[in-house]
Amino acid sequence: MHIHQTVIFRHKPVIIGSYSIVGPKEGKGNFGPYFNYVMKDDCFGENTYEKAEKKMIQSAIVGAIENAKIKPNDINLMLAGDLLNQIISSSYAARYFNFAYLGLFGACSTIAESLAVGASLVDGGEFDTVVCSTASHFSTAERQFRFPLELGNQRPPTSQWTVTGAGACVIANEGNGPRITMATFGKVIDWGIKDVNNMGAAMAPAAMETMIAHFKDTDTTPDDYDLIVTGDLGKLGSEILIDLMEDNGYKLGINYKDCGQMFYTRNQNTLCGGSGCGCSASVLNSFLIKKLREGEYKKILFMPTGALMSTTATQQGETIPGVCHAIVLESDVNSDQIKENKKRRNKKV
Amino acid sequence: MHIHQTVIFRHKPVIIGSYSIVGPKEGKGNFGPYFNYVMKDDCFGENTYEKAEKKMIQSAIVGAIENAKIKPNDINLMLAGDLLNQIISSSYAARYFNFAYLGLFGACSTIAESLAVGASLVDGGEFDTVVCSTASHFSTAERQFRFPLELGNQRPPTSQWTVTGAGACVIANEGNGPRITMATFGKVIDWGIKDVNNMGAAMAPAAMETMIAHFKDTDTTPDDYDLIVTGDLGKLGSEILIDLMEDNGYKLGINYKDCGQMFYTRNQNTLCGGSGCGCSASVLNSFLIKKLREGEYKKILFMPTGALMSTTATQQGETIPGVCHAIVLESDVNSDQIKENKKRRNKKV
Repeated sequence: MHIHQTVIFRHKPVIIGSYSIVGPKEGKGNFGPYFNYVMKDDCFGENTYEKAEKKMIQSAIVGAIENAKIKPNDINLMLAGDLLNQIISSSYAARYFNFAYLGLFGACSTIAESLAVGASLVDGGEFDTVVCSTASHFSTAERQFRFPLELGNQRPPTSQWTVTGAGACVIANEGNGPRITMATFGKVIDWGIKDVNNMGAAMAPAAMETMIAHFKDTDTTPDDYDLIVTGDLGKLGSEILIDLMEDNGYKLGINYKDCGQMFYTRNQNTLCGGSGCGCSASVLNSFLIKKLREGEYKKILFMPTGALMSTTATQQGETIPGVCHAIVLESDVNSDQIKENKKRRNKKV
Repeated sequence: MHIHQTVIFRHKPVIIGSYSIVGPKEGKGNFGPYFNYVMKDDCFGENTYEKAEKKMIQSAIVGAIENAKIKPNDINLMLAGDLLNQIISSSYAARYFNFAYLGLFGACSTIAESLAVGASLVDGGEFDTVVCSTASHFSTAERQFRFPLELGNQRPPTSQWTVTGAGACVIANEGNGPRITMATFGKVIDWGIKDVNNMGAAMAPAAMETMIAHFKDTDTTPDDYDLIVTGDLGKLGSEILIDLMEDNGYKLGINYKDCGQMFYTRNQNTLCGGSGCGCSASVLNSFLIKKLREGEYKKILFMPTGALMSTTATQQGETIPGVCHAIVLESDVNSDQIKENKKRRNKKV
């Protein structure tokens, strides 16, 4: 069932397994302790960064299937995408698995797109168990979208740092884990930003559009969520979003965060913060799912954002459109279990 | 409901509108009389081929909505993709529409991917009305994937000609038109082809894999279809497929065709035939849907194929994986209506 752009899932598909894998720099960031695996070097044993990115998706999918305690043959479908031309990290990773494949592209919003489509297919009864994955890599993105790495180009203050990371999760029609209860499918919004080093500004209007659509379609307000978390607007982009939402009568309070803004520590020199498909995907499949499993967060509005930019379009004088899809994630842990969990944690201390 | 890779649609979503638009060369090809619009020049009034490709998607979507006799606001979701890096033709076209957007990438199989996902979302009740579209353009594809156009490079005999064309169709949960009754979601298959000028050989194993999966999942044989039509295997690729299927015990007879092989006339100098997202998309949204609407074909197995190649991957020594999704299209015209149609056609003559 849908209300305008928002699908309300009748059977509330379950995230039964998840896995995250990141680069060494990311491992030293704020979510470091939450990731399943921190790579020792950016090449992950491969001879190119692109091949490393592909291997990260493969590893994340294998990890998520193991975490779900199912067999690879239980998976019906893989939904994946990434930033590289022709989404080669995903398509080439898919060769190694014996399940059907859907390639998606929503730039850094791809993990939300894969969750929205994956949950819809499971909820509608088309498939029983699907796996969603995305990845990004600082070195592949930088040299594809901006400058050769060897150039050591100076980065403007509005720029963000593409996260070297991948995340994968398994969505099923039954089992234990956080549930996907709604998805708001976003529109492509373009307010005319042309600066490829200011993606936060390019994506903020799309985040606003999807967030307002979500609140209106579901008759909710920011207070109805323990956490509202955008993908990779970064410091500047999330400030723009807060302003835009205020202009529209919505006050985003301390329950609003941005994965990109939170990702790195202050001394990691990433300017406006993290970005890339792997940013929100690795945060979801580590920190966020852990907190939902423990019941610390009961209801999260997860809103990865994507800047649909391309060097070809930029060279032809085009502006940068943005897109954002919203996913509502709810904990399956009840209040008694939460108290129990807290007691257990206190005992350990 | 799914049997392995195949989803059987309970409510059989309907294609209520379709539209095709092609370049001047394509207009002179075998399907010329069936296309809705033949462009006077390859640039379509734009100053770059890439912008022309974007405009073709826009025009195809507008045309399909008009053909469906609905309003743009009746559309819930657009599913689109193309061959360009970051699927800019689709993403940039989406700016002009006020509906939610899902970007897909399955190379030349993208129209099948969009139909499979779109029909699933409509069948599952997630959305009521969606529009699917893809496009390709000879000049954008050639200069992105192979050589600068100005080079006038000699083409090897195994090469195909990227179709300048776009197609769009509107899928709804009710109305009149051909119905989508099943979809087989394909796996990524890579048999090690490295030649970017021999995509037919790269895609044939994926077509074989999906076709066998479809026949097994649905307990059908090639004889159960009035037409089995692959996307753009071309002359060589479709011959390889016929051989591969024979090795597996399936005889593909005269009811098997390939859109790429049929697309151009013999004197149009396209060697192995047409290719590109726009090849199968424009044939579906002109010739095939017309024949289903008239009842001349009752049941078609439509199988667009995609070569998931990328210059980055090729430069790093990678092989070319293929993918193929299968869609079963059934006419809603009954035998009495077919007789009536035939009478009317005979009178005209």
